[in-house]
Amino acid sequence: MTRTSPGPTVGVVGGGQLGRMLGEAAAPLGVEVVVADPTPDCPATPVVRDQLVGGFEDEATIRELAERADVLTFEIELADPDVMERVAAETDTPVHPDPETLRTIQDKLVQKRRLADAGVPVPDFRAVETADDLREACAELGYPVMLKARTGGYDGRGNVPVSGPDGVAAAIEDIAGPAMVEEMVDFERELAVMGCRGGDERDTFPVTETIHREEILRESVAPARASEAVREQAREVAGDVLDVMDGRGVFGIELFQTSDDRILLNEIAPRPHNSGHWTIEGCHTSQFEQHLRAVTGLPLGTTEIRDPTVSANILGDVDERQEATLYGDETVFATDRVHMHWYGKHEVYELRKMGHLTMTGEESDALLAALRELRDGLTFRE
Amino acid sequence: MTRTSPGPTVGVVGGGQLGRMLGEAAAPLGVEVVVADPTPDCPATPVVRDQLVGGFEDEATIRELAERADVLTFEIELADPDVMERVAAETDTPVHPDPETLRTIQDKLVQKRRLADAGVPVPDFRAVETADDLREACAELGYPVMLKARTGGYDGRGNVPVSGPDGVAAAIEDIAGPAMVEEMVDFERELAVMGCRGGDERDTFPVTETIHREEILRESVAPARASEAVREQAREVAGDVLDVMDGRGVFGIELFQTSDDRILLNEIAPRPHNSGHWTIEGCHTSQFEQHLRAVTGLPLGTTEIRDPTVSANILGDVDERQEATLYGDETVFATDRVHMHWYGKHEVYELRKMGHLTMTGEESDALLAALRELRDGLTFRE
Repeated sequence: MTRTSPGPTVGVVGGGQLGRMLGEAAAPLGVEVVVADPTPDCPATPVVRDQLVGGFEDEATIRELAERADVLTFEIELADPDVMERVAAETDTPVHPDPETLRTIQDKLVQKRRLADAGVPVPDFRAVETADDLREACAELGYPVMLKARTGGYDGRGNVPVSGPDGVAAAIEDIAGPAMVEEMVDFERELAVMGCRGGDERDTFPVTETIHREEILRESVAPARASEAVREQAREVAGDVLDVMDGRGVFGIELFQTSDDRILLNEIAPRPHNSGHWTIEGCHTSQFEQHLRAVTGLPLGTTEIRDPTVSANILGDVDERQEATLYGDETVFATDRVHMHWYGKHEVYELRKMGHLTMTGEESDALLAALRELRDGLTFRE
Repeated sequence: MTRTSPGPTVGVVGGGQLGRMLGEAAAPLGVEVVVADPTPDCPATPVVRDQLVGGFEDEATIRELAERADVLTFEIELADPDVMERVAAETDTPVHPDPETLRTIQDKLVQKRRLADAGVPVPDFRAVETADDLREACAELGYPVMLKARTGGYDGRGNVPVSGPDGVAAAIEDIAGPAMVEEMVDFERELAVMGCRGGDERDTFPVTETIHREEILRESVAPARASEAVREQAREVAGDVLDVMDGRGVFGIELFQTSDDRILLNEIAPRPHNSGHWTIEGCHTSQFEQHLRAVTGLPLGTTEIRDPTVSANILGDVDERQEATLYGDETVFATDRVHMHWYGKHEVYELRKMGHLTMTGEESDALLAALRELRDGLTFRE
């Protein structure tokens, strides 16, 4: 193993905030980052070697990315596994994690089947295409249920709750495509585990508690405020999930803790994940460093936590799409142990993820209360 | 105060490792960095918005930098205070810290006089130009002494120890220019304090113990293994030094702890400093974030230490200038709580600073021993 200048180049499909934070983590390791993203001057651009402006599934762009890179990875599920496989073969550039893993995850039905087959506990689910299918499935699962588009959904998009027979027709119309339906889990809290697969090792970061509203992550609390036994169970399930995945990298593994303290898998993201942003300050190794270690073939870093840590997303609070100007940040910068992470997005719209705050300390409840107050003092306006 | 995209641009004169680490620290704050450096693809380039290729004192380059920036700063003492003052006036771009501070510091005699006048404890010193001056000064100070070029020296260059009358003529010839001579301080250990000046506040990071060999920094230990009283005295002296400085930013303040536990000022660097690299992992706010906060007008961050921390420089161990390939890093990456910082320099030569390692933990002696072993396992070869 050696360090050189320039060091290995990681080509990243996608240059949003995850690409930006990969760029921030890369330089100390001697790793260079090039991103491909259709938005000119995307969030990653100011902190990486270069951006190729082109679509996530545009084969010429991804081929150029592969030619410039020693290894390809992706920070967005919109990456195209077929395109990545083809250019990887043509240019002899490995892709991590394996595009086959992305393909599995992109289809929520395939994902759930694969995991259920491997013995990972998942909510009860059925494939559905028509309103009749859905009615039949609900007869077995019992209302309420969650209808999910098999592909393309994120941050709650593509998910439609159905509370009774009257909602069936509208829900099917809303999804307008292949879908699956899941029992609505009566959960005590939502958890997430950042898992990581290296060359011949796997590990999991401490269990995070994730707090959503309108199905969008608002705050993360680490370690999760659950019993030691529940946290242990969550890490075990996450380990089982990692065993099903192929290739190297970090995985965001979203879980439910049920009201009777069982752990059920919700969803997987084959990349750094919003629920792991707290690791930048909260752990010795961040999820971003870990991903770069994994895909470039370095040993994984320790996943040990340094201090109790919470993070809170800064979301767009405007009605109309507009230039992004955030007010109220002076209090954030004046508060000890609070870290701003600004994503550099030029425009803000409702609920867009514009940045996040992280705070480290001693006691989770107090940290969460303090950070929420700071976050609530932030607002976008012209 | 607001965050925008793009955010404020800091123009940095110099794009070496300090510029690189400023770049790493800038993105989370929403700050963009442009550097000016004569070496194409200098260390900062992969992680900043842009590099202007041009000399530190090249007025056209520095003017272009000022035009692109909201505030100018410098990461190298070779920056030219006259040039910066002129382009600042022409382009209405503030420079932090004040070029006048740089001018004072660039001349070691002027620096010492200014500090002594302000009541800061310094080793006894005299101005010298000729061999006769030096003999006369030594008669008062007593041998051994340290003869120092007034300008241009760093990492021990420009410093010549004189142990007795026989060495006087050669030392003067060696310096070949305006000089000063100082009593050779009988020190117990060397200390450094990173000081910072914000808009209307100043603060100091915890006292660092610095271990030099051949006048080049090898390791830093924080907190310094000195008594609480000595550390308190060091922070007080550093605070007095900050009061003499003009403008905002961080300052590396190098100190001697004498054998009778007095603190004497050695030298000042008006910029982030090698002795403060440990703050990246060791403190809640790194010296680089602190510098960016200061020069862009944000409140200073807390200087509180998180954990005992040591860092060790990775220096060139080759006889001949060659392409930089470092071997032995697998052990570094496989050791928990150890952080690699690779500077991305294309070529290595003897004693060139190529990177550093940082390790956090509980007990300084054990940390230092462990980190030295890791560092000693690294070697450059073709």
